[in-house]
Amino acid sequence: MRKRNWVAIATWRMALEGFVQHEAAIRDGKRASEFIPDLVQAVEDYPFYKSVGYGGLPNENGVVQLDAAFMDGDTLAFGAIAGIEDFANPIRIAKQLSVERYNSFLVGEGAMEYARNAGFAQKPMLTERAEKLWQIRKRDIVEKGLAPYDGHDTVCIMAQDQEGSIVAGTSTSGLFMKKAGRVGDSPISGSGLYADSEAGAAAATGLGEDIMKTCVSFQTVLFMQAGMTAQDAVDKAVSQATAQLVRHRGVAGDISVVCVDKDGNFGAATNTDEFSYVVMGEDMRPTVYLTDKHGEHRLADEAWMQAYYDERHKKIED
Amino acid sequence: MRKRNWVAIATWRMALEGFVQHEAAIRDGKRASEFIPDLVQAVEDYPFYKSVGYGGLPNENGVVQLDAAFMDGDTLAFGAIAGIEDFANPIRIAKQLSVERYNSFLVGEGAMEYARNAGFAQKPMLTERAEKLWQIRKRDIVEKGLAPYDGHDTVCIMAQDQEGSIVAGTSTSGLFMKKAGRVGDSPISGSGLYADSEAGAAAATGLGEDIMKTCVSFQTVLFMQAGMTAQDAVDKAVSQATAQLVRHRGVAGDISVVCVDKDGNFGAATNTDEFSYVVMGEDMRPTVYLTDKHGEHRLADEAWMQAYYDERHKKIED
Repeated sequence: MRKRNWVAIATWRMALEGFVQHEAAIRDGKRASEFIPDLVQAVEDYPFYKSVGYGGLPNENGVVQLDAAFMDGDTLAFGAIAGIEDFANPIRIAKQLSVERYNSFLVGEGAMEYARNAGFAQKPMLTERAEKLWQIRKRDIVEKGLAPYDGHDTVCIMAQDQEGSIVAGTSTSGLFMKKAGRVGDSPISGSGLYADSEAGAAAATGLGEDIMKTCVSFQTVLFMQAGMTAQDAVDKAVSQATAQLVRHRGVAGDISVVCVDKDGNFGAATNTDEFSYVVMGEDMRPTVYLTDKHGEHRLADEAWMQAYYDERHKKIED
Repeated sequence: MRKRNWVAIATWRMALEGFVQHEAAIRDGKRASEFIPDLVQAVEDYPFYKSVGYGGLPNENGVVQLDAAFMDGDTLAFGAIAGIEDFANPIRIAKQLSVERYNSFLVGEGAMEYARNAGFAQKPMLTERAEKLWQIRKRDIVEKGLAPYDGHDTVCIMAQDQEGSIVAGTSTSGLFMKKAGRVGDSPISGSGLYADSEAGAAAATGLGEDIMKTCVSFQTVLFMQAGMTAQDAVDKAVSQATAQLVRHRGVAGDISVVCVDKDGNFGAATNTDEFSYVVMGEDMRPTVYLTDKHGEHRLADEAWMQAYYDERHKKIED
């Protein structure tokens, strides 16, 4: 089979450690259907990322509920789980479900029953740090009248591998202080992610409720299918989704999208003031970029990287 | 406000009773955001329809688990629930959730906690008839090696009302013998349904796992937004989704879609041998049509209507 240039892209700086850790294997020809779960798992396992996997912030009841999805663009195989508790790696469960012709999206108790029977690793997912942040927020909501919701930084990772296969995965603990059972866009095909190896893949992070109103990932892939490059497609899809929300509702929540097209190009766009993403490929080591709602893209410099690290690791004062 | 012609369309013959029951109020100017839940509830309440609400067939554990969604095309407000048990009218819960900016899609225990607190009517949803069918199927799976899955006739109803608002709703008990916690396309924006009053609405019934791989409802609405009539849009979306599945997987599950466009036209298409749908409008009393994968449309004649009734009401022999 003809070897192509390959490319991988992820939402948020938090994907960097996994990119670095698995770079050699990917460069060596590992397939995207195998390495996408590896890259997502690295974020799930990292305790200082508050919006994905272990260390993720809990819902209003103090429980960490997790959503994840996996889509293989060769076969359109799609698997997802939502509202599960105390499983170490939701992305692995989503991937296993994706091969099922029936019952490939499971939620709540049924999803946990499936995961237990299938032998997936269980682990208490609420860290001391996340619990402390939850207690502080609960107090602030009462005392300072703060809104309960912010922080919804889903990790979305996708790649075109050396054989041309395009695969995408997402994983999240969802909105901080969400209602029990709340599901956002991350496990939703067309909204949180979409992949078709004939066209490209796209995945979204932001306010899930608004992303589901616009199906922005599917729209991005359709633009690529129509011949647009990855960056043009994602610029148009994000600005169109934002405009559609403003026209119908007066306001649009945060939406940030990353994508790859079938020719190995990548793209990223946001309607926010700052969105970080990580890219690597045949000719590029793992690199963190920043973009914003004006469509400017720049390398994350050392000062930005240090500030990001410090913020994630700072002592929680209560 | 200028009064327009109005139109309503639903998947499957089973929507007929509700159309007849609520026709006068709709003709009188009731708004779609109000009458869509009425029409869906009529199907949920009808005990002889085995795939929606009361009387719906249970999952592999003998439990009826219900999914529903509601989308208002004026505001893109989207609400959904999945995997809930023993609530009489899932569509009402989905509608109430749709007005929330956050937490508008709830699943499993959390969804039931919300519905209990909000005072929605609870009701044991497993009928004696459905339980008997479940027992027979369980036995047949063991004795005759039958596949567990068939029967996934979601009710999807949408309308453009006299003010031009386009609204859609879905409700289902999902695949017969599904795994606990399984969610299909019905509560999924872009797959099970999509509505934008500026373009149109579409909703799907069939094999949810395959519908989620193609986002066929969103695609149908995009074709209408690009200027195609409802029928042209849905013909193209269903044939394209079917072809995409065959190309990537060798096989496509059942997909049937109904839609309305912003000019008050309706459309229906299927990749199956027979798909029934119900229409009414300014100049048309509630009418049942049939279509098939060749794109032919005909009125359901009296013999067909009688056979349908007899099949739903026949004595269950075990």
